[in-house]
Amino acid sequence: MTDVLNALQLVLEERKQAAPESSYVASLHAQGLNKILEKIGEETTEVILAAKDAQDQATTKAVIAETADLWFHCLVMLSHLGEDHTAVLQELERRFDLSGIVEKANRS
Amino acid sequence: MTDVLNALQLVLEERKQAAPESSYVASLHAQGLNKILEKIGEETTEVILAAKDAQDQATTKAVIAETADLWFHCLVMLSHLGEDHTAVLQELERRFDLSGIVEKANRS
Amino acid sequence: MTDVLNALQLVLEERKQAAPESSYVASLHAQGLNKILEKIGEETTEVILAAKDAQDQATTKAVIAETADLWFHCLVMLSHLGEDHTAVLQELERRFDLSGIVEKANRS
Amino acid sequence: MTDVLNALQLVLEERKQAAPESSYVASLHAQGLNKILEKIGEETTEVILAAKDAQDQATTKAVIAETADLWFHCLVMLSHLGEDHTAVLQELERRFDLSGIVEKANRS
Repeated sequence: MTDVLNALQLVLEERKQAAPESSYVASLHAQGLNKILEKIGEETTEVILAAKDAQDQATTKAVIAETADLWFHCLVMLSHLGEDHTAVLQELERRFDLSGIVEKANRS
Repeated sequence: MTDVLNALQLVLEERKQAAPESSYVASLHAQGLNKILEKIGEETTEVILAAKDAQDQATTKAVIAETADLWFHCLVMLSHLGEDHTAVLQELERRFDLSGIVEKANRS
Repeated sequence: MTDVLNALQLVLEERKQAAPESSYVASLHAQGLNKILEKIGEETTEVILAAKDAQDQATTKAVIAETADLWFHCLVMLSHLGEDHTAVLQELERRFDLSGIVEKANRS
Repeated sequence: MTDVLNALQLVLEERKQAAPESSYVASLHAQGLNKILEKIGEETTEVILAAKDAQDQATTKAVIAETADLWFHCLVMLSHLGEDHTAVLQELERRFDLSGIVEKANRS
């Protein structure tokens, strides 16, 4: 699974330069930070509702799809602010002291 | 960088089995889905506020930290529902048709 | 200002019975609880963004409008669940021990 | 019932002037707008979860309590920005053209 976020990042940066009417990502950047943050708020509500419904419906399909939506819009926000997922993953690596585990996994 | 998510997943699964009083992750699982979803809601608000403040303060440090918090609690939610980040990344890969880019990156 | 919520409640109950295509309120009820809760999540994000922007823009017009949107969708949710604003106001009255103040105001 | 909001407004303005350590309202004002908005985000998530659980549990008690929490923190936000509930209610009155209904109710 390693490189999905890296590959997505390439796509996001390319589309950031596209014409707003040709790309959803470009249209989000053109509409600005508030629009991107509204989408993050919306997707979070949908994650919460899907997680609650997952208990009753015994399927996690919608939770997975909504979490993908949420992370995607987080990536667009990071891109809009000149950042990307690597800074977030470094922060998680640092907090959970994961460097040893990652290094070991990379060796094997 | 996504190796970080794999490493974090190992840590999260290990701590899921721990005593609630010994681990934040275990305490979240013990408190149940609503508690985990409340944290996701809280962290989203903090991402939004940090992103707004990033514009004025010309630093993205808080946005990175809050996004890490949000993704971390999403991972705990996925784990609580018997899922993990690989399903989310597969969904993103499928949607954005990233398989070619990922394969190419893995070869080089 | 006393009776705006009571008057709005009458309108909401009337529209709850209307054809979904003739009324926004009826369409929300027809789409169900998740749709109504998604709107509450959306409006909350808009309240938060408008409040942040109010500081920079020195106007509270958007905050007022978004708070009205949020409360309106809360009233629709209460109506969907067979409740209304009076239960919420009674809860606030009880918590803040307001009965003395309300009674005094009603006398004068 | 909206007299409750007027009475609560008096209490909120009084407590706004209090020492932060003596009053929750004063402590929110002292912590500033971000803290107040975080609470609005938190309470919205709790409203959403309580509404979902109300369907299963056949009780609206928690929804009422969480909606009261949400509205209360909205009132603190409005107060923090120099506004109050009357502006929100006027906006709702204008949008739904409630003046005729309110006037009629006041006459009777």
